[in-house]
Amino acid sequence: MNPGPQTENALDPPALSRYPQATRYAGGMIENAMENLTDGDQRLVLTLSCPDKPGIVHAVSGLVSEAGGNILQSAQFGDPDTGLFFMRVSMDVPSRETVETRVQELAQTYDMNWSLDEIGRPLRTVIMVSKEGHCLSDLLYRVRDNALPIDVRAVVGNHPDLSPIATFYQVPFILVPVTKDNKPQAEQRLLDLVEAEKIELVVLARYMQILSDKLCQKMGGRIINIHHSFLPSFKGARPYAQAHERGVKLIGATAHYVTADLDEGPIIEQDVARVDHTLTTAAMQKQGQDVERRVLAQAVKWHAEHRVLLNGTRTVIFR
Amino acid sequence: MNPGPQTENALDPPALSRYPQATRYAGGMIENAMENLTDGDQRLVLTLSCPDKPGIVHAVSGLVSEAGGNILQSAQFGDPDTGLFFMRVSMDVPSRETVETRVQELAQTYDMNWSLDEIGRPLRTVIMVSKEGHCLSDLLYRVRDNALPIDVRAVVGNHPDLSPIATFYQVPFILVPVTKDNKPQAEQRLLDLVEAEKIELVVLARYMQILSDKLCQKMGGRIINIHHSFLPSFKGARPYAQAHERGVKLIGATAHYVTADLDEGPIIEQDVARVDHTLTTAAMQKQGQDVERRVLAQAVKWHAEHRVLLNGTRTVIFR
Amino acid sequence: MNPGPQTENALDPPALSRYPQATRYAGGMIENAMENLTDGDQRLVLTLSCPDKPGIVHAVSGLVSEAGGNILQSAQFGDPDTGLFFMRVSMDVPSRETVETRVQELAQTYDMNWSLDEIGRPLRTVIMVSKEGHCLSDLLYRVRDNALPIDVRAVVGNHPDLSPIATFYQVPFILVPVTKDNKPQAEQRLLDLVEAEKIELVVLARYMQILSDKLCQKMGGRIINIHHSFLPSFKGARPYAQAHERGVKLIGATAHYVTADLDEGPIIEQDVARVDHTLTTAAMQKQGQDVERRVLAQAVKWHAEHRVLLNGTRTVIFR
Amino acid sequence: MNPGPQTENALDPPALSRYPQATRYAGGMIENAMENLTDGDQRLVLTLSCPDKPGIVHAVSGLVSEAGGNILQSAQFGDPDTGLFFMRVSMDVPSRETVETRVQELAQTYDMNWSLDEIGRPLRTVIMVSKEGHCLSDLLYRVRDNALPIDVRAVVGNHPDLSPIATFYQVPFILVPVTKDNKPQAEQRLLDLVEAEKIELVVLARYMQILSDKLCQKMGGRIINIHHSFLPSFKGARPYAQAHERGVKLIGATAHYVTADLDEGPIIEQDVARVDHTLTTAAMQKQGQDVERRVLAQAVKWHAEHRVLLNGTRTVIFR
Repeated sequence: MNPGPQTENALDPPALSRYPQATRYAGGMIENAMENLTDGDQRLVLTLSCPDKPGIVHAVSGLVSEAGGNILQSAQFGDPDTGLFFMRVSMDVPSRETVETRVQELAQTYDMNWSLDEIGRPLRTVIMVSKEGHCLSDLLYRVRDNALPIDVRAVVGNHPDLSPIATFYQVPFILVPVTKDNKPQAEQRLLDLVEAEKIELVVLARYMQILSDKLCQKMGGRIINIHHSFLPSFKGARPYAQAHERGVKLIGATAHYVTADLDEGPIIEQDVARVDHTLTTAAMQKQGQDVERRVLAQAVKWHAEHRVLLNGTRTVIFR
Repeated sequence: MNPGPQTENALDPPALSRYPQATRYAGGMIENAMENLTDGDQRLVLTLSCPDKPGIVHAVSGLVSEAGGNILQSAQFGDPDTGLFFMRVSMDVPSRETVETRVQELAQTYDMNWSLDEIGRPLRTVIMVSKEGHCLSDLLYRVRDNALPIDVRAVVGNHPDLSPIATFYQVPFILVPVTKDNKPQAEQRLLDLVEAEKIELVVLARYMQILSDKLCQKMGGRIINIHHSFLPSFKGARPYAQAHERGVKLIGATAHYVTADLDEGPIIEQDVARVDHTLTTAAMQKQGQDVERRVLAQAVKWHAEHRVLLNGTRTVIFR
Repeated sequence: MNPGPQTENALDPPALSRYPQATRYAGGMIENAMENLTDGDQRLVLTLSCPDKPGIVHAVSGLVSEAGGNILQSAQFGDPDTGLFFMRVSMDVPSRETVETRVQELAQTYDMNWSLDEIGRPLRTVIMVSKEGHCLSDLLYRVRDNALPIDVRAVVGNHPDLSPIATFYQVPFILVPVTKDNKPQAEQRLLDLVEAEKIELVVLARYMQILSDKLCQKMGGRIINIHHSFLPSFKGARPYAQAHERGVKLIGATAHYVTADLDEGPIIEQDVARVDHTLTTAAMQKQGQDVERRVLAQAVKWHAEHRVLLNGTRTVIFR
Repeated sequence: MNPGPQTENALDPPALSRYPQATRYAGGMIENAMENLTDGDQRLVLTLSCPDKPGIVHAVSGLVSEAGGNILQSAQFGDPDTGLFFMRVSMDVPSRETVETRVQELAQTYDMNWSLDEIGRPLRTVIMVSKEGHCLSDLLYRVRDNALPIDVRAVVGNHPDLSPIATFYQVPFILVPVTKDNKPQAEQRLLDLVEAEKIELVVLARYMQILSDKLCQKMGGRIINIHHSFLPSFKGARPYAQAHERGVKLIGATAHYVTADLDEGPIIEQDVARVDHTLTTAAMQKQGQDVERRVLAQAVKWHAEHRVLLNGTRTVIFR
C-alpha cells in the first residue's frame, strides 16, 4: 500500500476550497457577530498570563483605548495558589499592529505569556482516528455547519475504516498504519504533516495509539484527546469494562491536553451520563459515545476560541 | 423539476442492500444480545394495554411458560388515574405462532390492545426534513452504527439542501416541495410513499411544515416530531427567540407524537441545556441543536424498541 | 389572636446576637477569602449599568488604581439588543470614601446606575412562608453554616406551622394571617417591618399569597420568589398537577424577581429534575421540593453577592 | 464523662412518640398510596435473588394470585454475567402468612435469598455523624416531612457539635467519642445500641471514623456511607483537595454500602456538580455538600423501600 500520493492528491485545491471566504464562523457569542464590526476595523482576541500584580487590567484596557479600540468581552482570574494572573480580552480595533506593539511592551513589563489572534480565524487542524467514527463524524458536521472554528487540513487514521466520512466532508484522509516496526516512521510522517500544513491543533478523536514524547513536546498544549472515562477514574485501557465491573451509576468522558504522562494532562472538559444495572459493557460504550463527542466538541470549540489557558497541570477556562 | 423518476431510482436495490443480514441492531440491553439466543428460538417483544384487573401478569407469564419460552425483561404499570394497565415483555420462544395465538385469546378476555414483534427488527421509516441537518445527520449516523433499530426507506425534504447527507448514507432523498398551491398533491405523495413502502414510522427531523389531519390520523402514534423548546413553553414558531426574550436560564427540546393539535401531542422525551445572558438567539439555537438531536434519537430508539405506550395524552415509557 | 406583642419580643436582642462578629460569610470564591485582605484595607464590590460606550472598563479600572486598590474579580457584559453595559468589580482598597467619590463622578459622566457594598456584608432579609418548610429549613441551615450572606431579621408566616423551624435557628417568627378582610392591614404590617428593620431583601419561600402592587413597587428588584414550575410553563396555581396532566418528562423550579405581573418577573435561576409515568402528582411535588430549595438558595446567594443585575425583563448574572 | 445514662434518657418515650400512628410514609409511588388499600388487606414488598431459571416470574405471580392478592409493581433483572436473577414485587394481599408460607416453599425450589416486608414500614435506623451537619439536617428534615421511611432511633456522634439538630427533631443524640485508646469500647457501645434498639440500618452521614470489621460484617449490606467524591476517583482522605489539585471540571458524591475495604463497597447512587477554576478547595467542599446530601438521601430512600439488591460487588436498583 502506498498512501503517499493519495495524500498529495487529497490535499489538493478541491478540499481547500471547501470554505468559501463569505462564510464565517458563527459562534453565537457577541464577539462573533461580525456584522457589528465597523468598516476597516479588526476583531482580535488577546490572552495572557503573568505573575499577579496590581494594575494589569488597567494597563490592558488602556492599551485598547489608546489603540482606538473597544472591548467586547473581558475576563480575568488571579490564582491565589500559584500567584499567576490570567486574562482574555476581545476587542474591535482599527489596526492590529498598534495593539501588537503595545502588547509586546506590556509583556516585557509584566513578564507575560501572551497570544493575539483574529476572532473566528479557523485553526489549522489535524484530526486523528482509529475505527470508531462518532467523534469524527460529529466534529466534521459541526465544522461544515460553521459551529467550530477549525480548518481541518487532514484526517489521519491508523486504519482505513473512516476514510468515507472524511471524504464526504471533503477533507483529505491519510492512512498511517502503526505497527511495532514502523512506529518511528509513522511518527515522522505526522511530524512532516504538522510542519508542511503548519498545523496548530491536533485532535485525537478516539485515536487508539500513544503519541511519542517528541510529538507531545513539540505540540505541547495543542493536542486534545478524548478519554472515555471520568478521569482520574478508569485510566488506561477498557474504561467501560472497568466502570461496569465497579458498578458505577454514572459514566463519563474527559477532554484533556496530551502530555507525556498518559491520561494525566490538564483537563479541559468533562461530562457524565446516567447508567444502571441493566446495561452491559457494550451498552455503556454505546451510551458513552454521546458524552464523548459532546465533551470533545466543547473542548475543541473553547480551545479554538482561545478560551482555555494553561495553569500548570490545570486549565483556566473563560467561557 | 421532476423528482418522480429520481425517487424510483433512489429506492432501488443499492439503498436496500445497505444493511447486510449479518449486521444486527445492537442496543446493548440484555434482550438485544442475540448471541444468547438458543438455536431455533425467536426473540419477541409483546406490548399490551387494557383495563387493570388482577391476574394479568400471571396470565402473561403463563403464556410464555406454556409456549416453552423464557422471559428476558418484563415491565408493567397500572395507572390509578385512568384505570389502565400497561405491560411490555420480551422473551425467547421456540415459535411465534404459539405465542400469537395465545395472546389473541388473552386479548379477548382482557380487552387488550397489543402488538407482538421480533426484537431488533428495524421499523420501516421515513425521515422528513427541511434545511437544518443536525438531526438527520445524527439519526443516519446512528443507524449506520447499528445504534437505532430503524430501516430508513427514504428521506423526504421540502428543500433540496440535505440531499447530500442522505446520499452519503445511501438513503434515497425525495424532494417534495410544499407551496400554498400544491399542498394536497404533496400530501398525496407522502401518503403514496407511506403506502408503497409500508412505512411504520415517520420522523419529523426539524421539518418545518405542518402535516395534514389526514396523515396525522392515518399514522396516529407513529409520527414523532422534535420541537425546539421545553414544551409546553414556547409552542409554535421561533421558540428560541421567545426563550431569549423571556430570559430563561435553560433551553430545551421535546420529542412528541404528532396529533392534529400543534405541539400538543403526547411527550416521549425532553431535555434541557443551560444558557446565560451572553447568548444571542442565534447562539441559543446552535446550542439547542445538541439537545434536539439527542432527544429525538432517544425518542426514536425507545419507540422502535417498543418501549413507548400511549396513555391518553401521555406516554408510558418502559426504559 | 394578637401577634403584635409577640413580634416585638421576637425581634429582641437574643435573635440579633446570633451572628457573632467573628463569623464571616465564606462563599469560597477568591473575593471571599478575607484572610488575604491587607490590614486596614476594605473589600468592596461595585456593580453598575449604563448605556454602552468605549472606555468604561478603562475608567473603572483606573478608578481602582487611583484609589490605591487592587481588582479581585471583574466581569462585564454589553447587550447589543438594549445597548446597555453591565459591570461587576470586586476590589481591595485602603478607603471606601475615595472609591465612592470617584464612582459618583463616573456615574454622572456615563449616566450609570450603580451600587457599592462591602463584600460578604449580610443583607437584612425577611423570609415569608406558608406551610411548606423545605425552602425555609434549607435557607436557615445555609445561613447558620455561613453559606449564605444574609441576615434573616424575621420569618413571616401567614400560618403558624413553621414557627418551630425559625425558633430553632433563633430567628423571630412573626405570624401575619391573611384573610379577605384584613389584607390591607397585613400588608401594612409587612411594610412597617420592612421599614423598621431596614429590610433589603424579601424572600418568598413558598409563600402562597400574592403581594400588593405597593409592596412590589417599593421593593422592586428586591423580592425573590420561588415558583414551582419551569416558567413560563405552568404559571399560576397547582403547577405539579398541570405538569402531571401534560405528561412532561422533566419538572422544574424558577427563582425570579417579583413584579406586579404574577410569575412574569425577571428570572434569576431555573433547574429541572427527571420524572416518569410512575409518579403521581404528589410524588412530583415531593421530588420538586429538592429542585425548589436548590434553585431558591442559588438565586438568593447570587443576589446577596451582588451578582444579579436587572436588564429590563431579564437578568445579567456574573457567576 | 458518662454518656451512658444520658443515652437511656434520650431513648425515652418522648422521642418514640414522635411519629403518630396516623402519619404514614408517603413516597408518592403508586404502591405508597395507602388510601387505595382494600380494608383488611396488607401491602407487602417481596424481594428475591436466585440462580436464573425459566418460570420464576410465573411462579411468583402465581403465588400472589393464589394468595388472593394483586400485584402493584413488579421488576426483574437477570444478570448474564453472574447468572443470577433478581426480582422485586409489591402487592396487596388479604394475609401475610399465606404469602410467607408460599415464598418459603418457592425459596427452597429455586434456592432463593428473599425478604418480605410491609410497604412503608420505617426501618429502625441509627445515623452516625462527626461535625458537618448538612447530611444529618437534610435526612431528619425529610423524615419529619414523611419523605423517608426510616425511624431514626438515635444519632450517634463522635463530637457533640450536632446534638442540637438531633434534639430539634426530637431524636436522641448519643455522644460516643473515639480515641486511639477507647476504640474497642466505642465499638462495643455501638454494637450494644444496634442490639438493644434492633437497628436495621446504619447511615454514616459524614462520619469521619472507620468502623471495625466486626461491625461491618454484622451489619453487612445494612450500613450506608456517603463518600465525598465520585468513586473510584479520590478515595480516602481530603477528596476535594485531590479534586482541586487534579483540576477536574465536575465534583461528585457516592453513596455505597460499607465493607471491610474502605470506599470499595457496592455503589448505590452517585451524582456530580459542575465546578470551575475559580473555586477554591473550600468552595468545592461547600458546593459538594449539596450533592452529598442529595445522593445520601436518595440511597437511603431506595434502600428503605427495598429497591436495592446486592449483586456481588455491585447493586441492582429497581427504581
